[in-house]
Amino acid sequence: MTLGALVFDAYGTLYDVHSVVQRCETCFPGKGTQLSLLWRAKQLEYTWQRSLMQRYVPFSQLTREALSYSCAALGLDAAEHMEPLMAEYHCLAPFPEVREVLERLPLKKAILSNGSPDLLMPLVRHSDLHLDAILSVDQLRVYKPAPQVYEMAVKRLGVAKERIGFVSSNCWDALGAKSFGFRVWWINRTGAPLDRLDFEPDGALHGLGDLPAALAQ
Amino acid sequence: MTLGALVFDAYGTLYDVHSVVQRCETCFPGKGTQLSLLWRAKQLEYTWQRSLMQRYVPFSQLTREALSYSCAALGLDAAEHMEPLMAEYHCLAPFPEVREVLERLPLKKAILSNGSPDLLMPLVRHSDLHLDAILSVDQLRVYKPAPQVYEMAVKRLGVAKERIGFVSSNCWDALGAKSFGFRVWWINRTGAPLDRLDFEPDGALHGLGDLPAALAQ
Repeated sequence: MTLGALVFDAYGTLYDVHSVVQRCETCFPGKGTQLSLLWRAKQLEYTWQRSLMQRYVPFSQLTREALSYSCAALGLDAAEHMEPLMAEYHCLAPFPEVREVLERLPLKKAILSNGSPDLLMPLVRHSDLHLDAILSVDQLRVYKPAPQVYEMAVKRLGVAKERIGFVSSNCWDALGAKSFGFRVWWINRTGAPLDRLDFEPDGALHGLGDLPAALAQ
Repeated sequence: MTLGALVFDAYGTLYDVHSVVQRCETCFPGKGTQLSLLWRAKQLEYTWQRSLMQRYVPFSQLTREALSYSCAALGLDAAEHMEPLMAEYHCLAPFPEVREVLERLPLKKAILSNGSPDLLMPLVRHSDLHLDAILSVDQLRVYKPAPQVYEMAVKRLGVAKERIGFVSSNCWDALGAKSFGFRVWWINRTGAPLDRLDFEPDGALHGLGDLPAALAQ
């Protein structure tokens, strides 16, 4: 079946979060990698735990809280570094291939992200990518991989789920989308194993640059 | 308000999972700690992700799948070690103080666990602890910290939530229970920071041995 739209995850898929790691290292020399790994892990944990607790807060707040926790766990004083670290989320760079790949794909294109509008909109504006829709979970008050998140793309784009191609570098996100009923490509830049969540993506790619060829198959 | 029942988490709270770490080290010398940390992290991730995806599988299966993923991620051959590692979950030892503490507390006592009955019941039988109820999320097909899990304890014990004391070594579990409305004691054996999830436990204890004194306050 011909695709009618492509829906992309934002953080780690279109946008490289490496600059956050660098900023962590600048703020806390020698501890940057450890901090950024824990921060990202806690950020994701909090999205899942809060969704299950039915205690949603926007991703910006949750990300800040995950940073606060992570600094405390590592014995780092977060106070003066909180704003510079959070500010990185407004100016992440797209991966080098993103702009050209998006321009080459003659389909409706959207972002579907956990990011709240206060984080997501400045980021997209700053990067000047051309997308037809920027969809945030914020109005649903639940995070990925809840099926209603993926359902939002169907409703907002007016395209049946079987005709939506979903692209994410987060395996659990890709499999959540597959479980919902999208066609799915997992961007596996690091050679990670497939998560054991009962589903498989339609394809696993080394980077977004491989997407046009994969879609042409 | 006087408590009418005490409800305990199982893994890591009443039962020490250290023997799993030891077995990991026996199976994969030099890699045991790394494997056991990743296995535990993936096990929890899968409980949250599957709950949100509405794709429940029992904890025994999920734990096996988390082990399979973790071995693959670390380049370890899981095949011959899968059964011995899983078997550890049937014979975990209670922490040394558990039996005496449970006997000293003149209240209805229950376990409320993510563990499926096939894992949980042999464990409790093997350890010979005296509990009034063993409650598993399995019949609800959703994992902690979903509120309906804590609600099950209210229904099954016939005690109002305000009169249930909940005890867990997992901070997010303790705070999920607090969000639901229990009185909560967090067993913080490792000196971890409080998770940033909008709630605080009624008390944080270094071990279960401090529980009788905390309840008497």
